[in-house]
Amino acid sequence: MRPLVDGGTRPTKAVEGEDFVVAAQVFREGHDAVNATAVLTDPDGVDHHYPMSVNNPGLKWWSATVRPGRPGAWTYRVEGWSDPVATWVHDATIKVEADIDTELMLAEGVLVLERALTSIPADVEGDVVHDAVTTLRDPSRPGLERLHDATSAPVLAFFAAHPFRELVSPSPAYPLRVERQLALYGAWYEIFPRSEGAWYDEESGRWHSGTLRTAAERLRGIAEMGFDVVYLTPVHPIGTTARKGRNNSLTAQEGDPGSPYAIGSPDGGHDAIHPDLGTFADFDIFVRAARRHGLEVALDLALQCSPDHPWVTQMPELFNTRADGSIAYAENPPKKCQDIFPLNFDNAPAEAYAEVRRVVQVWIDHGVTLFRVDNPHTKPVQFWQWLIADVAKDHPEVIWLSEAFTNPPMMHTLAKVGFQQSYTYFAWRNLRRELEAYAQELATDTAHFLRPSFWPTTHDILTPYLQYGGPAAWQLRAVLAATLSPTYGIYAGYELMESVARPGVEEQVDNEKYEYKDRHWADYAPGGPKDGQSLAGYLTLLNRIRREHPALHWLRNLSLHTADDEFVMVYSKTRALDDGTHDTVLVVVNLDPHATRETTVHLDLPALGFEWDRRFVAHELISDQRWDWGADNFVRLGPETHPVHIISVRGY
Amino acid sequence: MRPLVDGGTRPTKAVEGEDFVVAAQVFREGHDAVNATAVLTDPDGVDHHYPMSVNNPGLKWWSATVRPGRPGAWTYRVEGWSDPVATWVHDATIKVEADIDTELMLAEGVLVLERALTSIPADVEGDVVHDAVTTLRDPSRPGLERLHDATSAPVLAFFAAHPFRELVSPSPAYPLRVERQLALYGAWYEIFPRSEGAWYDEESGRWHSGTLRTAAERLRGIAEMGFDVVYLTPVHPIGTTARKGRNNSLTAQEGDPGSPYAIGSPDGGHDAIHPDLGTFADFDIFVRAARRHGLEVALDLALQCSPDHPWVTQMPELFNTRADGSIAYAENPPKKCQDIFPLNFDNAPAEAYAEVRRVVQVWIDHGVTLFRVDNPHTKPVQFWQWLIADVAKDHPEVIWLSEAFTNPPMMHTLAKVGFQQSYTYFAWRNLRRELEAYAQELATDTAHFLRPSFWPTTHDILTPYLQYGGPAAWQLRAVLAATLSPTYGIYAGYELMESVARPGVEEQVDNEKYEYKDRHWADYAPGGPKDGQSLAGYLTLLNRIRREHPALHWLRNLSLHTADDEFVMVYSKTRALDDGTHDTVLVVVNLDPHATRETTVHLDLPALGFEWDRRFVAHELISDQRWDWGADNFVRLGPETHPVHIISVRGY
Repeated sequence: MRPLVDGGTRPTKAVEGEDFVVAAQVFREGHDAVNATAVLTDPDGVDHHYPMSVNNPGLKWWSATVRPGRPGAWTYRVEGWSDPVATWVHDATIKVEADIDTELMLAEGVLVLERALTSIPADVEGDVVHDAVTTLRDPSRPGLERLHDATSAPVLAFFAAHPFRELVSPSPAYPLRVERQLALYGAWYEIFPRSEGAWYDEESGRWHSGTLRTAAERLRGIAEMGFDVVYLTPVHPIGTTARKGRNNSLTAQEGDPGSPYAIGSPDGGHDAIHPDLGTFADFDIFVRAARRHGLEVALDLALQCSPDHPWVTQMPELFNTRADGSIAYAENPPKKCQDIFPLNFDNAPAEAYAEVRRVVQVWIDHGVTLFRVDNPHTKPVQFWQWLIADVAKDHPEVIWLSEAFTNPPMMHTLAKVGFQQSYTYFAWRNLRRELEAYAQELATDTAHFLRPSFWPTTHDILTPYLQYGGPAAWQLRAVLAATLSPTYGIYAGYELMESVARPGVEEQVDNEKYEYKDRHWADYAPGGPKDGQSLAGYLTLLNRIRREHPALHWLRNLSLHTADDEFVMVYSKTRALDDGTHDTVLVVVNLDPHATRETTVHLDLPALGFEWDRRFVAHELISDQRWDWGADNFVRLGPETHPVHIISVRGY
Repeated sequence: MRPLVDGGTRPTKAVEGEDFVVAAQVFREGHDAVNATAVLTDPDGVDHHYPMSVNNPGLKWWSATVRPGRPGAWTYRVEGWSDPVATWVHDATIKVEADIDTELMLAEGVLVLERALTSIPADVEGDVVHDAVTTLRDPSRPGLERLHDATSAPVLAFFAAHPFRELVSPSPAYPLRVERQLALYGAWYEIFPRSEGAWYDEESGRWHSGTLRTAAERLRGIAEMGFDVVYLTPVHPIGTTARKGRNNSLTAQEGDPGSPYAIGSPDGGHDAIHPDLGTFADFDIFVRAARRHGLEVALDLALQCSPDHPWVTQMPELFNTRADGSIAYAENPPKKCQDIFPLNFDNAPAEAYAEVRRVVQVWIDHGVTLFRVDNPHTKPVQFWQWLIADVAKDHPEVIWLSEAFTNPPMMHTLAKVGFQQSYTYFAWRNLRRELEAYAQELATDTAHFLRPSFWPTTHDILTPYLQYGGPAAWQLRAVLAATLSPTYGIYAGYELMESVARPGVEEQVDNEKYEYKDRHWADYAPGGPKDGQSLAGYLTLLNRIRREHPALHWLRNLSLHTADDEFVMVYSKTRALDDGTHDTVLVVVNLDPHATRETTVHLDLPALGFEWDRRFVAHELISDQRWDWGADNFVRLGPETHPVHIISVRGY
C-alpha cells in the first residue's frame, strides 16, 4: 500500500485540500470481480469514501486521488471488496448473449440485485434497481433485452455511486496528519534584523545597529514583493568570548557585532533579545506590523551557545565537560570553534528538553508561528520528535523548518518525526537531469513525509553557478525554486545578486553573519540611482504568478516534459479547481545562463489535459504574450531575452 | 531496515543455517562515532550478536550476514549505538599527532577506557584495556607513543570483539521464522501412482491400473537418480459424472480412468484412497518404502470436487448453489467445466476450514510431510494462513508448496502467509535477460519470504521451448532449474523428453491426467532397447553435483557474470563452509538449444573470492575436465558438445 511512512508506524502528511494518491494491490481468490474503496476518516471519525480504479491490472494496483479537508489527526485505509453485481454483469453478458443458461442467469441477477437492495441506505433512492429486478422478472420480453435493460448505464451508474460491497476486507487504518496550507505553500524572505536600518556614521567611523523597530519598516517592501513569511536570524544577545570578526576572522575588531549564531551573553540567552535590537515590546510591535502586512514571523532556533551564555554557569549539565573540567567547545579535529559550545542532550535529557521547550514557548507567546531550526541534525532525533509533538498539543499552527544539509536518511527522518518543512539539496542541482531526478523524487518518492523548501542561496551557501552565472542565473534559480517547490525562500540581498564569494569558500564575502549591512534599498527604487539593478520587480511578478495560479501551490502535481536541447528543462503542474476546471502552468527554463538557446520543446499533452493532436493557448506570464501551441513548439531562451517562460495553459 | 515482510507485520523466512544479510540505515546526530549490531534472538530468548559494518557511508547503510540455527520462532533486530572508544580514537589520533591538547586527549582516553572497563562482562579478560589505561597515565613516556600503544591493534581487536556500547537504540524485534532445510533445498520427482505398474492387456484390450504397491517399486529408481521428495498426484476416488476422456475429451470412453483432479465418488472423497490404488495399509507401505530410500512423500492437495464427491450431499454448504437450486460447476464463461464443483469457503467458513483441516490430518497421520497445493489462489488467502499455521502447531515439519501460476501479488501473498515454497514463472523465462532478471529478483527482492521451486515442465505445462528445443533444451532447462533454485523438480517422463503437445495447447499429448501411462522404464536400462535415450543418467549426475556442492543448496548466494554472446548465461553461487573455506560453483549455459556457440565469458572474480588478476582451477563436473581459468575465458557450448558447463571453482 502507498503511501506509507516507515511501514505505517509514522503518520503520512498532507495539508488541507492537498490531493494525493492512495494506492494498494487489491486482488482476491478465483475469478469473481473485486473492487476497492479508499477511505479517509476525519478527526471526528467520519468516513469519506473514494472509489478506486485499477491502473495496473497485471500487478493489481488500484488507486484513488483523495483530498483531506481541515487540519487534524486523520486516518486512511483501503477496503477491498467482493463486487457481486459486477461478477453477475460480466458472466450474464457473456452467457445470455450466447444464449447459454439465459433464464438461469436472469434469475441469478434477480437474486443479486435483491441482495443489493437490502444494503441501500434509507436516504438513497433505489428505484432504478427495483425497476431492473422487475425487468429481469418479466417473462414476456426476450432475455437479451431484459438483460440489457437491467444492466443499462443508469443501473451501472447507481452502483458506481452506491456500490454493493460484500466481504469487505480493510487494510489497517494508517495515521494521516493534515496540517495548514502554509506548511506546504509559502514564500519566505529572510532578514538579519540588525541590518535593516543599520547605518554607518562617517564621522565616528562606527556602525549603528538596526533595531526591531527599524526592521519593521522593511516589512512593507517584503510584503509588496509578495512574500508570506518573514524569517529572522537569531535576535538574542551575542557572546564576546572568541567572537568572530568580519569575514569569519578569528579576532573581532572593535565594533564588530559578532555572529548572531554565537548566542548568549550576560544580557541573556535564547529567551532574551539583543539590547541593540530592542525589547520584547519592540518584538511585539514587529510581529504586529508583520501581521498587518499579511506576513507571519519565523524565528531561527539555533541550539548552541557562546561561552558567555547564562546556561554555561546556570545549567552546566547542558554541555560536555572535558577531562580537565572545562566545557567543550565545538571541534571538528583539528579545527576548533572556540566561540561555540554545543549542547549535550544526553547528560540530563529531562532538564535539557524542558529548558528548550520553555524557550520555544517564550517566542510562541510573542507571536512566532514558524521556527527555522539551525542544524537539527546535530541534536538527537528523538528530542525533535518530542519537542514538535509537545508544542503541537497547544499550538498545532506552529511550523518547523529543518535546516539539515546532511545525509538523506537523517534528512528524511527529521521530516518523518515532525518537521513540516525541510531545506533540500536544491542549491546544488544545476543540470537538467539532476533537477528532473530530484524534483521527481521530491514530488513522488518522499512527498508523503518531506515537504521541500527551496532556497537558491542561504547566508552559508553561494554556489559557483550563482557566483558566475550573471543575472540570468539569479532569475532562473528563483523561478525554479518558486515553481518546482510550493515553498521557497530567499535571503535578503538575493534581489541584488550579491555574487562575490569570500575567497576559498562558497559563501558571500562581507557576510552579514559577521557585520552590519546597509543595502540602501531606496537606491533601487524607481528613479533611484540604482533603479533597474534589482530583481525585486521580477520576484514581485513571480510571487504574483504563484498566488494567482493554484497549480503552483502544490508539490505532487509535477509532470516532466522534454526538449531537444539538454539544457532546456520543461515541466508543468496542474490543479483541479472546485468549479470543475483545471489550472495548469507550464515552465520552460534554459538552464544555461551563459547562452541563448533555440530548441523545440516536446509536451506530454495528456499531462496538460489535452488529446495528443490538440492545440492550446500558451499565455506567457512574464512577457504577457499569447501563443498557439501544440505538442512541439519552438522556444528561444537565454540571457539575451528571458531565461524562462512561465506559461498559463488554456484550451481554446 | 531490510529484510522486512509487509513492514515487519509478517515473519521473515529463513531455513536452518541459511545466511542472509540484515541491513539498516544507522546514523546519529552530530559527529561522534556510531556503530551497529544485528541481533538474532533464538526460540529460547538467547541473543546472538553480529557486528555490522557500513557499506554505503553516504546513505548510512550498515549490514551484517547472519546465520540462524535450528528451526523455530526467532526474532531479529538492529541496535545502533554510540561508540565512545571510536570517537576518542578518531579525535585523539588527529589531535595528538598534531600535538594539540595532547595531555588533555590522553586524559580523555583514560576516562573513556575506564568507563569501558565497567561494562566488560565478568568472564572476559580485560587486561589489554587495563594496560592501555596504565600506558595513557604514564607521564614518563612521550604522548604520541602512549596514544599509539593505547590504540594498538590488540586494543582495537578487543573492542571489536567486546564493543563498549552506549546509548543503544534498538529497532523493533521483527519476527523470523526458521524452518528445516528441506523447505529451501530439495529435488522433487512427481508420479501418477496409477501409471507406475500400469499395463495394457493386449488380449482384453484393457488397461490395468498401477497401485501404491507397484508404485513403491519405482521408488528405488527415483532415489538412485538422487531425488529427495516423491510427489504423488491425487490418490483419491475419481468421479464418473462428466468424466473427461483421453486428451481432455468431453466424453470418456469405457475404461478411461478420469482425471485424478476430479476428486470424489461413492468410494469417498479427499480422505479416501482410490480402490484401484489400494488401501491405507498400502499407502503406509509406500511411505515406509520411500523413507527407506531417503525420500519424503508429498501429496497433491486439490480442493475441488467431482459431482460425485460425498461432500456434495453431506456438506452442500461447501459449494455455490445457483438460482435453480443446483450446485454450481466450474465456469469461465462461456466455458463450462461440468466435471468440477469448486468449493466455496465463504458460506460456512468454520465448517469448511475444519473439514479441510481434518482431511489434511488424515494424510499427515499416514506419513505425508509435504503438500503440493493445487491452485491455492482460487481459495481465500486467509484460509491458507489459518490452515498452515494450525498444522504447524503440532507438525512444524510439514512443508507447503503453492502452485499459484497467477499474478505476482497473489503469488507473493501466499508465500507471506505461510507457504514454504512456490511454483514460479521459471518455465516461461527463456532469454538470458529474462532469466537473469528473474533469478536476481528471486535471490534478492523476494528471498526473505518466497522460496522458489523450479520445474521445467509440469503435467499442465509444455513450453514451445521444450517442444522444439531437442535434447539440449531438456538438459539445459534441468540444469537451470537445479542450479538457479535450491528446490527444483521434474514430472515423470521428463527424462524421456516427452515433447509432443496436444494440438492447440501447451500441454503434453496423451497426458497422464486422463489415461494410464506405462513408460517401460526397463527399456532404458543399460543394455535395454532404448539405452541412451533417457536423461536419467544426466539427472543422476546433476543431483549428485547438487548434493556434493553446498553452494547449490542456497538461494541468496547468486552472482551474475557475463559473456559476449547474448545467449550465453553465466552465474555462480558461493557458500562459506564451517572450516573457513568456500564452496563455489560456476555455471555457463548456452541458452540456444539449436546452435553450438563459441564466446568469451567474463567473470566477476571478486564474486568468486579472487583478486582481479588471479587464475584458478575450473573443474568442469559434467565432463570431469580441469582448466586454468581467469577473468576472461573461451567456451564452446551447444548441441554438438554439451549445452552447459558446471564448474567447481578452486584456487591454486
